[in-house]
Amino acid sequence: MRALIGDSEFDRDTAVTRREPGVYDIDLSAGWTIISAVNGGYLLAVLGRALADTLPHPDPFTVSAHYLTASQPGPAVVRTETVRTGRTLSTGQASLFQFDDEGNEVERIRVLASYGDLGTLPDDVRTTATPPPIPPLERCFGPEDGPAPVDGSSAITERLMLKLDPATVGWALGAPSGKGEMRAWFGLADGRDADPLSLLLAVDALPPTAFELGLKGWVPTVELTVHVRHRPAPGPLRVSITTRNLAGGFLEEDAEVWDSTDRLVAQSRQLARVRLG
Amino acid sequence: MRALIGDSEFDRDTAVTRREPGVYDIDLSAGWTIISAVNGGYLLAVLGRALADTLPHPDPFTVSAHYLTASQPGPAVVRTETVRTGRTLSTGQASLFQFDDEGNEVERIRVLASYGDLGTLPDDVRTTATPPPIPPLERCFGPEDGPAPVDGSSAITERLMLKLDPATVGWALGAPSGKGEMRAWFGLADGRDADPLSLLLAVDALPPTAFELGLKGWVPTVELTVHVRHRPAPGPLRVSITTRNLAGGFLEEDAEVWDSTDRLVAQSRQLARVRLG
Repeated sequence: MRALIGDSEFDRDTAVTRREPGVYDIDLSAGWTIISAVNGGYLLAVLGRALADTLPHPDPFTVSAHYLTASQPGPAVVRTETVRTGRTLSTGQASLFQFDDEGNEVERIRVLASYGDLGTLPDDVRTTATPPPIPPLERCFGPEDGPAPVDGSSAITERLMLKLDPATVGWALGAPSGKGEMRAWFGLADGRDADPLSLLLAVDALPPTAFELGLKGWVPTVELTVHVRHRPAPGPLRVSITTRNLAGGFLEEDAEVWDSTDRLVAQSRQLARVRLG
Repeated sequence: MRALIGDSEFDRDTAVTRREPGVYDIDLSAGWTIISAVNGGYLLAVLGRALADTLPHPDPFTVSAHYLTASQPGPAVVRTETVRTGRTLSTGQASLFQFDDEGNEVERIRVLASYGDLGTLPDDVRTTATPPPIPPLERCFGPEDGPAPVDGSSAITERLMLKLDPATVGWALGAPSGKGEMRAWFGLADGRDADPLSLLLAVDALPPTAFELGLKGWVPTVELTVHVRHRPAPGPLRVSITTRNLAGGFLEEDAEVWDSTDRLVAQSRQLARVRLG
């Protein structure tokens, strides 16, 4: 039976407990780790949930996150601030903290976000964007179809329905395409449908395009900004990530997320660091 | 005689005076207004200069700005905070405030930014990005070549060398192309060469792509994030702005800035609001 929005693994693992206004406790789940760290999209969803509780508007419209230090599974505190409240949009700030050996708070991520209500937007669409070319889901590849793609933890793959476009899995077979492209069908393993919050996960859940560029190892995110443009329809999402400029040890990853009705529901861009090899 | 970096109109108008550590005073110049507000790129440069003074690293690598209320020419205060200091990158936050009739501070913009040293990056480049198709500068159009493009102030146009690609000036002649594209040669009117700080201006200095989409009026920025990828070479820049998704009264503007050596020196994306007509 498919999990429902509000009662799924993703909802339980991103749930924050309000200790006092603007202060939330959470135990970061080890279930969303990849290689050596907690996935940045999962963390963004945790911060997004805390901000949705703090701000008068329900949906993230634009969220800008700067990643400071690598998060680990375990206890964390989210502190939020209402920066401005407007009629259409409200803006907030949130930081996620963990603790060092002396119990001092160490800031992991800081975000600025503007929230609104996707349900109130006019349905006017004039887009030239087109869905990514990706074969049908049954012809795409999941982790069960190939060798373990990365060293270290791949726990997050058990929580996702991630089926990669055969054109962008060369890296897993030792033959990267050399193109900065990664495409996949995306969903949650327990069948929970997408919502604006899970889109914050979707934009940072694919293998890094750096792998298809022939680079190995972790590609830590410096900054990631996501725009949620529409409430996603039920059904699997298509996520397309493109890198055009790898230079000076940094690259950008542009993600687009499309829903089952061919609607562009989210766009994101991140700046990430790579080890040039 | 051409103005030098450090001694130009742009440098004087973005100069901040440190009142105390982390607190800077500035008088926002009326010279950078467009339509009814102070240009968002100019404001970003002001905040960027304050952060460069606060942080141990000199160059903005990624700056995320959320625009809260419209700035006006006149006195303003910038408050900065060092969020994290690292070896390669340091992260800071800055807010620009002005004052209401009772003298209370009103926050205009809040930014999160990660700074580094562009001079220390390896010169390795593996890019598939190509410079925008734009005719030679002498075949492009400036404000002096056509009717006043917008109602209200256009003071900023006197401070810029802005020559628009003839293919993207239809809006100024009452015949918008319908494409979400805007391209121009960009420089400062006094001949000052570009640097990482002036790139923060360059990404938000062109007419909005919404004009070419047949929309009129102000297109207020909700959020703008810019990545500075390389120190620009002397000479005019080429700026290309693309909008692919206008939906629900919001659109994204993706900007690329190229220098005279065909190097991609900055990328930005903003989410902006439009009045649907």
